[in-house]
Amino acid sequence: MDEVRPQDSRIPLYHQIYDTLRQQIDDGVYLPGDQIPTEAELSASFGVSRITVKQAIKKLVQESVLYRKQGKGTFVCQPKVNRKLNRLISFNDEMLQKGMAPRARVLEIEVVAARRLVAEALHVPEGEKVVRISRLRIVNDEVMAVQTSHVPASLAPGLIEKTERLSGSLYRVLSEDYGCSPAYGKESYSAVVLDGSDAQVLGVPDGTPAFAVKRIACLQDGRPIEYVESLLRGDRYILDIELKAPDM
Amino acid sequence: MDEVRPQDSRIPLYHQIYDTLRQQIDDGVYLPGDQIPTEAELSASFGVSRITVKQAIKKLVQESVLYRKQGKGTFVCQPKVNRKLNRLISFNDEMLQKGMAPRARVLEIEVVAARRLVAEALHVPEGEKVVRISRLRIVNDEVMAVQTSHVPASLAPGLIEKTERLSGSLYRVLSEDYGCSPAYGKESYSAVVLDGSDAQVLGVPDGTPAFAVKRIACLQDGRPIEYVESLLRGDRYILDIELKAPDM
Repeated sequence: MDEVRPQDSRIPLYHQIYDTLRQQIDDGVYLPGDQIPTEAELSASFGVSRITVKQAIKKLVQESVLYRKQGKGTFVCQPKVNRKLNRLISFNDEMLQKGMAPRARVLEIEVVAARRLVAEALHVPEGEKVVRISRLRIVNDEVMAVQTSHVPASLAPGLIEKTERLSGSLYRVLSEDYGCSPAYGKESYSAVVLDGSDAQVLGVPDGTPAFAVKRIACLQDGRPIEYVESLLRGDRYILDIELKAPDM
Repeated sequence: MDEVRPQDSRIPLYHQIYDTLRQQIDDGVYLPGDQIPTEAELSASFGVSRITVKQAIKKLVQESVLYRKQGKGTFVCQPKVNRKLNRLISFNDEMLQKGMAPRARVLEIEVVAARRLVAEALHVPEGEKVVRISRLRIVNDEVMAVQTSHVPASLAPGLIEKTERLSGSLYRVLSEDYGCSPAYGKESYSAVVLDGSDAQVLGVPDGTPAFAVKRIACLQDGRPIEYVESLLRGDRYILDIELKAPDM
């Protein structure tokens, strides 16, 4: 019954090319930034049609393992950052743990009246003062994400003056200066396609995928301390999650 | 110091329009499938510029709350499905729990030789026989996802004959017929942009965002029972996750 029939035993050709290219990239035959051989060269060296090579490359481009430069060729992307979900950890600490050099550039910091969605997230009345902080998150000199945090101004008086320290971890400032350590929270992820100003600020072409993230972080006593909206570059992030079967 | 200066106290206009439209959609003023007023009408009724209305609508389109039909207007999307992460649960049971009517359509089922990536995921030698099952996941007659599962043929002899039962939960078949209940696993999510055959099979336009998911599910004793690659429509899914601060 489970015999492999001849036509089934053949792994689709483009999968084989895909696997081989992926392996070569994993093994460092091609390094990030390297140009890979042309479709014609790959087609000749694998002994398969151009169409098959195209299919394999298309899948690798879709997965942001490779990228195309108009008129230049196909190149290897930087490896993605694996983000382990369900830990409430600052971007900064997460990157430091991975041995990377994170920093933030503050684009804007101001005290604003909480609009409805922000007020609901932070459990404050609409119009209440919140500190809004927009920051680029940068790792090894590459922009990885843009984040806009909202913190109730009453919980962090004077935060607006601390622009310089916000090139590091906001959570550290909240904890050290205000005794407010985020203890738990929730996040939601949407898949979006970047264009216009969002793409520009992240330094990627229009049409790049991204994760749009909304996070509410709370203090141990249940008070929301931060509501943040982020865009994480989809070509640079993978989200990892451990799964457990629910109790039967 | 934390005074709201006059220019800061004004919530950006387009955020107000965004919030209002969102609220109206949440409140059911506009129902899924409804056409919303034209930009000109909204601009007149809110007393703001067309540009401001455009900005708000653009954000709602990016978030798949609204969608545009060429030459027809702007319409309200179906509400998204919130997928709670870190539970190892079958698509079927997840949807049933939400009161939805899930089913699967088997596109292809065959026994194939495990290619390298599949073999590694399932801890079997390359070339080992695996049952490969491609299915459309359908909820309330709408295609939500396409999944390709791989199950070691040795763990599920005769599975290839059970096409009909695979219109329900694969995990149920594995559990009931083979005593193999997935107990834990891991998943990784990438953000991708659909085009070509992927977009076609999901019934969405080219350029729609999606989550590309890879999951390995294991039995209690650690043996991998399934490796599955999925594409979840980004315009129909939000991923929710609870966060806890790591122990200090």
